[in-house]
Order: sequence, then C-alpha cells, then structure tokens
Amino acid sequence: MRPYLKDPAAIYAESFRIVREEARLERFSRAMEPVVTRLIHACGMVEIADRLAFSPGAAEAGRAALASGAPVLCDCEMVGAGIIRRHLGASEVVTTINAPGLPDLAAKLGTTRSAAQVELWRERIEGAVVAIGNAPTALFHLMEKLDEGWPKPALILGFPVGFVGAAESKAELAGDPRGCDFIALRGRRGGSAMASAAVNALALGETHG
Amino acid sequence: MRPYLKDPAAIYAESFRIVREEARLERFSRAMEPVVTRLIHACGMVEIADRLAFSPGAAEAGRAALASGAPVLCDCEMVGAGIIRRHLGASEVVTTINAPGLPDLAAKLGTTRSAAQVELWRERIEGAVVAIGNAPTALFHLMEKLDEGWPKPALILGFPVGFVGAAESKAELAGDPRGCDFIALRGRRGGSAMASAAVNALALGETHG
Repeated sequence: MRPYLKDPAAIYAESFRIVREEARLERFSRAMEPVVTRLIHACGMVEIADRLAFSPGAAEAGRAALASGAPVLCDCEMVGAGIIRRHLGASEVVTTINAPGLPDLAAKLGTTRSAAQVELWRERIEGAVVAIGNAPTALFHLMEKLDEGWPKPALILGFPVGFVGAAESKAELAGDPRGCDFIALRGRRGGSAMASAAVNALALGETHG
Repeated sequence: MRPYLKDPAAIYAESFRIVREEARLERFSRAMEPVVTRLIHACGMVEIADRLAFSPGAAEAGRAALASGAPVLCDCEMVGAGIIRRHLGASEVVTTINAPGLPDLAAKLGTTRSAAQVELWRERIEGAVVAIGNAPTALFHLMEKLDEGWPKPALILGFPVGFVGAAESKAELAGDPRGCDFIALRGRRGGSAMASAAVNALALGETHG
C-alpha cells in the first residue's frame, strides 16, 4: 500500500496550497477568494474558477447575512447535509423538499417538487441565503417569484447541475439577477457539494493571504 | 423569463437522451450502462465515462447485494442524503461520520474521522455496498483493513474527490481491488452525488435499450 497523508489539518493545508498554486486566485477579491477556494476544493476542478459568475458584493452579502443569523434555504437534502453546522452560528439550515403536501402542491402547480418547494420559502426568503445545488427548476421558480415582487434574499447560490435547464437557469440569473447578489457556476456543472461549500466558506468568513 | 421544462418525467427523459447522445454508452455492458448514465447525470459531465474504472461484474454484484437487502455503508452524510430510500427495499443506509466517540478514535489512530469510521463498519462490511463520496482516507483505510483480512464487501464505490489522495486512493483500488468488485472514477473528480447516483442506479436495476 502506498503511503498517504492522514492528518486532517495537513490534508486541508496541502489541498488549499494546490488550489492556490493552480487556480490563479489573485483575480478574485479577498472576500471571494475563500469561496472560490472551497468551491474548487469541493469538486476537484480548478478550472471552474473560469466559469464563475457573481455580483461584485456577493461574498460580503453572504457573510453579513450569515453573521446576522439569516437562514439558509436549501433545494435538497444533500445541500443541507454538506453544511458544517458548527460554523453557522444562529443561522438555521432549512430543507423543504420532503415537506408534507409538497407532491400535491407540485402537481397543482404543474412543476417539479423542487420548484414547488420555493413557495414554502415565502415567509423566510427576505435576507436569506438561498443555496441551490440540484434543481434548475427551483432556480427558475425562484426568479419567477422575484419577478412577481417577492422580497429579496441576501444571496442566491446558483449551482444546479445537469443537462436540462442547469446552464439556462444560471445564464438567466447571471443575465438578470433581479437585484439580488449571486454566485453561480455557468454551464452544466454544479451540485450540492459546491452549494454547501459556498455556504461553509461564507460562514467561516476566512480570508487567505 | 425564458421558457423551461417543468415536467419531472420529461426532464429525466430529456436528460438521459442527451447523456445517451453524447457519452457513447454502447461501450458499457447492459448492467453498467444505467450506472454510467446516472453518474453522468449527477455531475453534468459526459466525459467522466472515459475515466471510469470498474471490475467486470461490478454492477451485477451491486444489484444482487441491494436486492438481497445488503446495507449501504456511506463515508459521509451527503452520500446518505442522496440515496433515494424508496428504491432501496430492505437495505439500510448507514452513516457513521457523526458517531459518538469517533473524534477520540480518530485521534487514537492518528488519522481522519473519515478513515477511523471504517473501523465501525467491521460487523457489517461482509457483502455490503460501500459508497465513498468524500474522503480518500476512508478508501485507503478500507483497503488497509482488507489487507489485514477483513471480510469483503460486495462492491466498493470509489468516488472520493479532491487534491490530496483522491486520485491516489482510486489508483490503488483499481490497481489492486483486493478481490472486491468496484466502480471508481479516476483522478481528482468524484463526490457524494456520484456515489449516491451509483447506489440509486444499482437499486433501481434499470436497463436501457
């Protein structure tokens, strides 16, 4: 068996060193850099740094929201499972995809459960951090609600993944963020691990360099 | 707002159609094809099909294990959260990363919590499906235990991700699978969503074409 690194702190340090070495992080602000680092760390792909879209104050908005105890609204259980609770302070992680009655609501609205659950976020959306790591339809539905005049979240983390609607929903968000701060990965790639990693980076509020 | 597909069945069908169109799935067996399809679907990258390593009977072994109610041993909560329970039958999803006493055990063993939790799998490993979607050290530690003579799992799903040990642990597994069936993604990429997707495909037992 080949030797391998076992010390958690050493593994983190070496991981982040490799990311810094390969990802040209100097193009990002001090607030964005740790978010980008953790996004790359979560997926093993430095090249995603080239495909990120974000508003100028996105990282600051997310950090401020979490520092003030804003909830994190997740589009699937995996995003919630990936959020490191001990970094979160007073913020609650909210998952609604298994809420009772949601299948009926989705059928009534003629959409996916992922999209329909956004309706359940109405009372908590203002100032929240929205973390979408799975469903393009959830991101689309959220933008429809914002177009209808819903209160704005503090930050939209747009990481839906896949072949149908993922690239399109993130292009729609980046093209017109409806006055919200946002961080999104363009294209088909994304996923729960990236959405959680962004939340974790914002909760930690770490800066490098 | 641009129009988008809202019908879940239509979204799945169109996703799988695009995967089939782009991924040259005909190179895979009838049993592996649905696994590869769901792996690609989970990450949005058709090119991962080129980097998969697997034993000849891996998909069949995984399907048989789950059909007989074998447990799924997961290296992190996110893998467990991504497994669709209603497809699983009698199989239990086992996550141990938050087990009481694990931090002490990890400190005693001089390794990560992810690796140390493998010790807790001893009584359930024989014939189980092991789903590693996060930690290279968990996969390394499992191989050490197999080298010590532990009973064999039915299938190892090797999808640790990242910059330190991920590629190395999967190369070690593919180079010497210790007599176990396995499916792994070579290189830095991987993640919980892929590990869960493989379990879901095996549990569904679906075949295309």
